[in-house]
Amino acid sequence: MDVADLSPAQARERFRAGERVPTAGWCRGWTQANLIAVPKRLRYELLLFAHRNPQACPVLDVGEPGAWSTRLFSGDLRTDLPGYRLYRDGRAAADLDEVVAEWRADLVPFLIGCSFTFERALLAAGVPVRHLETGRNVPMYVTDIPCESTGSLSGPLVVSMRPVPGDLVERAVEVSGRYPMVHGAPVHTGDPSAIGIRDLARPDYGDPVEVREGEVPLFWACGVTPQAAVLASGVEFAIGHLPGHMAIMDVRDECYQVT
Amino acid sequence: MDVADLSPAQARERFRAGERVPTAGWCRGWTQANLIAVPKRLRYELLLFAHRNPQACPVLDVGEPGAWSTRLFSGDLRTDLPGYRLYRDGRAAADLDEVVAEWRADLVPFLIGCSFTFERALLAAGVPVRHLETGRNVPMYVTDIPCESTGSLSGPLVVSMRPVPGDLVERAVEVSGRYPMVHGAPVHTGDPSAIGIRDLARPDYGDPVEVREGEVPLFWACGVTPQAAVLASGVEFAIGHLPGHMAIMDVRDECYQVT
Repeated sequence: MDVADLSPAQARERFRAGERVPTAGWCRGWTQANLIAVPKRLRYELLLFAHRNPQACPVLDVGEPGAWSTRLFSGDLRTDLPGYRLYRDGRAAADLDEVVAEWRADLVPFLIGCSFTFERALLAAGVPVRHLETGRNVPMYVTDIPCESTGSLSGPLVVSMRPVPGDLVERAVEVSGRYPMVHGAPVHTGDPSAIGIRDLARPDYGDPVEVREGEVPLFWACGVTPQAAVLASGVEFAIGHLPGHMAIMDVRDECYQVT
Repeated sequence: MDVADLSPAQARERFRAGERVPTAGWCRGWTQANLIAVPKRLRYELLLFAHRNPQACPVLDVGEPGAWSTRLFSGDLRTDLPGYRLYRDGRAAADLDEVVAEWRADLVPFLIGCSFTFERALLAAGVPVRHLETGRNVPMYVTDIPCESTGSLSGPLVVSMRPVPGDLVERAVEVSGRYPMVHGAPVHTGDPSAIGIRDLARPDYGDPVEVREGEVPLFWACGVTPQAAVLASGVEFAIGHLPGHMAIMDVRDECYQVT
């Protein structure tokens, strides 16, 4: 069975069983989300940080302290993603297959929109998506664009990149722009150095993809941004998804499309 | 000088000096906002309640605990609105001209979008605004539509009403829809009883206005909704603006217009 045809529950079962893969292209038509779970004492700061940086951090759902399901994610947030990253004192402490032991009772999970959600719409509009073609993870980069900070959270904007043929750039902007809750239109097109990216071949997260002759790199705000803030702000404890290894939610991607 | 021509600073000075009037029509082109200030221990709940009810509670700005200015409001939130309502233990305890003594050090002020912001655009599009014509406060009603609740905050949606000639309803919907951060398009048009309003002549807040032959009542989500939640949820202490008596901010209404 093609992973695109799996239901969210079926995909989560496979991840729970140990499959560790990027989720681009999985569960066609279902919304994917970034995970960032922080101690309760930081939940206000994180929600405010998300509010102040809505393009990078569109909050799709928030759980109660210690909960591992939310209204829009009926699986188990501790086991049903294909990979996790644990943060301690502002450092990436470990990459893990599951985080049952680490899921503290005071942990508040936030699910943040993901641009994988509009890739089906890009394909339907004739815009190729290179990392889907090549079965790789999307490349993600830390930019030199600072986020709007809160009292204790600050950090740089993280972006995902998709190379798009020059004559399809406008269409890609228009199509993704219809999905404001999953990052919307690109934040930048063209020269990577203009946003502080030195080498497209060396992404900070995910896999590099080829940018071919006549193609323009398009950069979208990325839901890994809260993890970059956790790093930059020395947050004592947090759990994120492994970038590109998303939570697959029980909500259709059409729900985040505006007309 | 017409109050429409005042700058936000000039208007705030008049309110600080004691003028208690509804602010519809004041400071043409400047954004108006609802105030709800809650104790720090409730700030996460309030921000989450706002996030879950974005049409009623679009958060334009949030202050630090105890602060009486914010990034987008350079005046004094304790004195520079034309009226305040104080809440204690889920009851409206007092209406006040200023709240200097009541502004506790742990109070976190939220500024929430207000539909007065798009009234200039309605007028420019040829849509009459009855309460402006008659120099009254806008009528506001508590509906039977429940808001999405959080752990400790719940309550009904509050709406403002403007009667619009039948042939201009579509235009009013379209024009206000361009301002999603200040309530956007109406939540309901027509029959008031469909949303639990018994008598248009008896608004829960503000002044009644006449609905003439051939006019349709249009109902917009209203930023008084957090105050209704404070009431319904038995919140121990909160300060709101007196409905219709808004904070006039240092940001142009165009900033909240999407194209």
